[in-house]
Amino acid sequence: MDKSKKYLLVAIVLIGIISTPMLAEETSYEERITKIEDELAETKEELAETKEIILKNETYIAEVDKKASSFDYYGYVRSGILINDSLRGGKGGPYLTPAGSVGGPVGRLGNEPDTYVELVLEKNFYMENDSWAKYKIMIADGQEDANDWTADTSDLNVRQAYAEMGGLPTFEGTFAESSIWAGKRFDRDNFDIHFFDSDIVFLAGTGAGIYDVKLSENWMSNFSLYGRDFEDIGSTDIENYILTMNNYYKKMDYYGKWQVMLNYLFAKDNDRTDPDRADGGANILLAHHLDNFYGIGEGFAKTTIQYGHALGAQVKGIGSEEELTEDANAVRVTACGVVGLAPNWKLAPAIMAETSEDRYVDGDEYKWVSLNLRLSNEITENFEMVYEATYQYNDLSPEGYDPDGSDPRQSVNGDFWKLTVAPTFKLDTKSGFFSRPEIRLFATYAFWDEDLEDYSTSDVLGDDDFSGGSGLNFGAQMEVWF
Amino acid sequence: MDKSKKYLLVAIVLIGIISTPMLAEETSYEERITKIEDELAETKEELAETKEIILKNETYIAEVDKKASSFDYYGYVRSGILINDSLRGGKGGPYLTPAGSVGGPVGRLGNEPDTYVELVLEKNFYMENDSWAKYKIMIADGQEDANDWTADTSDLNVRQAYAEMGGLPTFEGTFAESSIWAGKRFDRDNFDIHFFDSDIVFLAGTGAGIYDVKLSENWMSNFSLYGRDFEDIGSTDIENYILTMNNYYKKMDYYGKWQVMLNYLFAKDNDRTDPDRADGGANILLAHHLDNFYGIGEGFAKTTIQYGHALGAQVKGIGSEEELTEDANAVRVTACGVVGLAPNWKLAPAIMAETSEDRYVDGDEYKWVSLNLRLSNEITENFEMVYEATYQYNDLSPEGYDPDGSDPRQSVNGDFWKLTVAPTFKLDTKSGFFSRPEIRLFATYAFWDEDLEDYSTSDVLGDDDFSGGSGLNFGAQMEVWF
Amino acid sequence: MDKSKKYLLVAIVLIGIISTPMLAEETSYEERITKIEDELAETKEELAETKEIILKNETYIAEVDKKASSFDYYGYVRSGILINDSLRGGKGGPYLTPAGSVGGPVGRLGNEPDTYVELVLEKNFYMENDSWAKYKIMIADGQEDANDWTADTSDLNVRQAYAEMGGLPTFEGTFAESSIWAGKRFDRDNFDIHFFDSDIVFLAGTGAGIYDVKLSENWMSNFSLYGRDFEDIGSTDIENYILTMNNYYKKMDYYGKWQVMLNYLFAKDNDRTDPDRADGGANILLAHHLDNFYGIGEGFAKTTIQYGHALGAQVKGIGSEEELTEDANAVRVTACGVVGLAPNWKLAPAIMAETSEDRYVDGDEYKWVSLNLRLSNEITENFEMVYEATYQYNDLSPEGYDPDGSDPRQSVNGDFWKLTVAPTFKLDTKSGFFSRPEIRLFATYAFWDEDLEDYSTSDVLGDDDFSGGSGLNFGAQMEVWF
Repeated sequence: MDKSKKYLLVAIVLIGIISTPMLAEETSYEERITKIEDELAETKEELAETKEIILKNETYIAEVDKKASSFDYYGYVRSGILINDSLRGGKGGPYLTPAGSVGGPVGRLGNEPDTYVELVLEKNFYMENDSWAKYKIMIADGQEDANDWTADTSDLNVRQAYAEMGGLPTFEGTFAESSIWAGKRFDRDNFDIHFFDSDIVFLAGTGAGIYDVKLSENWMSNFSLYGRDFEDIGSTDIENYILTMNNYYKKMDYYGKWQVMLNYLFAKDNDRTDPDRADGGANILLAHHLDNFYGIGEGFAKTTIQYGHALGAQVKGIGSEEELTEDANAVRVTACGVVGLAPNWKLAPAIMAETSEDRYVDGDEYKWVSLNLRLSNEITENFEMVYEATYQYNDLSPEGYDPDGSDPRQSVNGDFWKLTVAPTFKLDTKSGFFSRPEIRLFATYAFWDEDLEDYSTSDVLGDDDFSGGSGLNFGAQMEVWF
Repeated sequence: MDKSKKYLLVAIVLIGIISTPMLAEETSYEERITKIEDELAETKEELAETKEIILKNETYIAEVDKKASSFDYYGYVRSGILINDSLRGGKGGPYLTPAGSVGGPVGRLGNEPDTYVELVLEKNFYMENDSWAKYKIMIADGQEDANDWTADTSDLNVRQAYAEMGGLPTFEGTFAESSIWAGKRFDRDNFDIHFFDSDIVFLAGTGAGIYDVKLSENWMSNFSLYGRDFEDIGSTDIENYILTMNNYYKKMDYYGKWQVMLNYLFAKDNDRTDPDRADGGANILLAHHLDNFYGIGEGFAKTTIQYGHALGAQVKGIGSEEELTEDANAVRVTACGVVGLAPNWKLAPAIMAETSEDRYVDGDEYKWVSLNLRLSNEITENFEMVYEATYQYNDLSPEGYDPDGSDPRQSVNGDFWKLTVAPTFKLDTKSGFFSRPEIRLFATYAFWDEDLEDYSTSDVLGDDDFSGGSGLNFGAQMEVWF
Repeated sequence: MDKSKKYLLVAIVLIGIISTPMLAEETSYEERITKIEDELAETKEELAETKEIILKNETYIAEVDKKASSFDYYGYVRSGILINDSLRGGKGGPYLTPAGSVGGPVGRLGNEPDTYVELVLEKNFYMENDSWAKYKIMIADGQEDANDWTADTSDLNVRQAYAEMGGLPTFEGTFAESSIWAGKRFDRDNFDIHFFDSDIVFLAGTGAGIYDVKLSENWMSNFSLYGRDFEDIGSTDIENYILTMNNYYKKMDYYGKWQVMLNYLFAKDNDRTDPDRADGGANILLAHHLDNFYGIGEGFAKTTIQYGHALGAQVKGIGSEEELTEDANAVRVTACGVVGLAPNWKLAPAIMAETSEDRYVDGDEYKWVSLNLRLSNEITENFEMVYEATYQYNDLSPEGYDPDGSDPRQSVNGDFWKLTVAPTFKLDTKSGFFSRPEIRLFATYAFWDEDLEDYSTSDVLGDDDFSGGSGLNFGAQMEVWF
């Protein structure tokens, strides 16, 4: 072999040596890449399937959500016992004083002997176009009977049954934010002083109305017609109708929101029962709502003044009192709020005062002022001490008014004081005055001018068992709303 | 160096030049493929984990679904106010005429002064083998009192409480599709003319039965025994029992479905109250159900004829009337339906007529015919105008029948007319006559032969406040079922 | 060209031939790997997105779950008809014999003429820290009226309305497992003999308490104060208070668990109605709970002895009876259980016996023994035959006690027997005696010493329609609890 051939051979062998592993590698790459390609394709397919399943599940969840959301359950409940210092059944209630007969409350803490329940079931309807409707029914009962079977004294009744709808495409411009309703209901915009168990306005009955009519940039109004029943005369049901215009000025800001509510009432046949009774009336509420405590601290505050005439002289329960005379006049002022005092201390002061004249009888006069202070001190995550002090001034001249026909009311003038301490358990004491449920023990000491016991023989202070100017009650209670 | 060597060197260098990047590439591939393999393995693992999570979630959703589905909430409600043209409480109701005392209704639209609620809670039980059971309770109340607290007049009561089960493996052949039930209930197959607020058949009470027994290919039957209570005599509760066989021939097709319902009644002690009263009876219903409007258009139609004797002479509320004599006979015919007239127009005509003799007293005779037409005109997505016209003919000869013992009924003969216009809001006007909720305003003008006011002093037309042959009512109402 | 050059050319061509596909392959790998890398990156991204969606969905499911779980619906219901052999309404009830007036029941199967419903709605509150609260309301009604509208006789009332909370971080050590409650309720630890429709202990009313205080390793206690109402004297509500300590020793094991319950009662004004009436009292329950049938077979067994004095002499319905004298004494023993006899056969024997003296009147004596045996035989998956036999011995000397003031009770001595056969349908007969719903048909034959009819003219056996020493009833009933 010549050199050239030898060199060629060397070159070929070299090429062979170099390229053989390359070819082997090549085969190995081929296999690996093919395997990867296959597995990746599989994986992608699996992922696609998985995403489909997820989509299906999302639809499923949405359906289950829709099912669960179409129903809502709400309630308010209090239930407990009140025992007096001779270990007998205690008496009480926020309206136990003479002023209570004309709406003057005292603090409710450690002062409630009843089981009161409100059970609300709601059905929700949702449309694709974001319009909605709801139907709400409330069944309620109030009982002082502690037994577990109270059929004989049951007051179970339907307090609300109404439908409301909103977000309707047909409603535009001024009405774009409006909702309409009809049926039996508590008005949406009623508000209260919880600690007195007293609404400031309680408008309720059967009727229809429209909420959130935007009259201008800063002026929203509600319009409604409510019907209510007074007692019958023979086969005539005396109906009382209430036309309401309820106005809000400005959105809530640091300086608050103003409300002016106007109610006009007519009850054509009411003077058939007694010619002095009013067959109509009107009232006005001016309210200022703040979401801080008068600029002093976090919390809220509400300040109101109400004036009513004739049937309107019942300034709280609008249109609910048929005994009012055509000359009746009433003025009520309230202020209340909640404020954080210090870490773990919260304070809720409230005042309510009213003067009314010619209310039930020509020349009568009812004056009262109620002051209440509830204080809570968080001790642990689940335990707080709650204190409440009430003072009420009574100056009532009923001029012999005798609603039951057997117990003419006497003029009285005097003070009522109530002090309560209530060790309270809750799920989270940090969550504030209004979080519930609460389970509380309590002791309440009350004292009053004995004069107040003369007002009526049928009210709590007039009771034989509740005399001598003072009383001690203790007990336990649960309270929940949701 | 010789040429050969030089060439070899060139070859080697060339090989080197060519294979170096190849080797570099090789290293790069190795890294990339290895990385891919790792990542792919990871991704597959992640995907597997994800799928496990999805599986777990599916189980979770199914559990939540089961929880949500085990409960159902249903209801029917109407609530509103009726005001007359002197701004007093209006009177009305579909049974306000003399014929109403024997079941003759007039149109309900703009004619209902009450708040009536039916609240239904259902518990569902599902088995793996597709058998099922349900328990249903209905609580209901009816009130004309517009107030939000009606404890004194509350009629809250349990109208239904029954269990039903079906799909049972034990049930085969003829019974393969059957379900069984026991308890207090409205029969499943009751049906009504909504616009009259009148059932055609209303079978209800406490008992037991079986539905959907397949007697032949085209013949399905229900069998039931219902108990009902008549008034007591001393400690004896007079019970009325109703044996029912309810038959359906053919499945629904273009030519409809036929129904033959047979009821046999026995109330052993009913003649102890009054020897003329029936202690038994029977009736028959022949019904034809169409899912189009008599071949004319889309909609539905129902045509029925009923005959009853003795206790069976109450042909609607089967077994609900104890005052019927042993000679009583009644024949009733009805026809009703719904049809689309034109785009945005729907029509619902209805007729009901009855003649009965020897009903409560030997020789009495009650004849009446009610015609009703409801028309709806969709204006926008949320607003429609609804119109209703009713005519009723009354020819009643009660022969001094005096159910209250103080108000013998007088013979009357005359006509009643009612016209209502009702602007109506709903979530979707396209969804038809029977979709709810509806919130409606309305005005109703009715006029009648004054003669009709003489029938009874205790019915609506006999009322002092409702005289002079005509009346105008207006108001607002919500209606919802779900 | 010389040879060298030629060889070089051959080498180059060879190199070219070898490396060309290699280079081509190289390009192909590059493309494939790049594609894989891209796709893998995409896939990973998609998977990440998918996992995010899953996470979002999990949150969504949890929310829906929370919504669905915050509400619970429970109930107990029975409804059916009882017809006697003359096809009139049957009479019955587990307390139809003279002994029934002092709590002596007979078997309930095929012996219940009523529709009784308990409807329970529960609201649940869950905290992150595993503490919880719940609010429960029970509305109930009982009716013998078979009609679907029973407003006149409706007994709808709120039987329970209470809140309970537990798992509170504030509660540690002895109280670590404790829950607290307040409101109106049936005590959590009441237990019954279902087949007699009789609780062994039924403590209920309005109050507050704490469960599961761990006094030592093997000793758990509940403490509570319940209030109940006796009849009023004028404006005085007579309240009866019950202080309870309820103790459990050892956890349940093969040899069972012991219970000692102590009740102390005081009703300060109860002797104002009648000076012989007790104004206090006490009772004790010693109970042994087994989760097998006395070591013989699978099932459970309960054995109890109760002793009570004065107001405590009502040993079942703690504090529910105001007529008891201050000298009243009662001893009651019970034993009951359920055991599997053979495949498809289950047995539930029960015994209850009581003797009481000076119960309502000085010198009276009430002795009775009730024995009951319920037997079920599963025939198919959905059908079983159920049998029940009852024997009751009555020996009552009421000494002229006259609770209604018009019907002094007579001394009687005699036996009562009841035999029932009940073909029963259920979703799964294998699921045992206590699974529901059940739909049953039944026939019941009862016979008794006619002497027993003399006890009272106002009880069932004293009824004119229910005389002659025997009776046959048949009917149908549903029963469900959930």
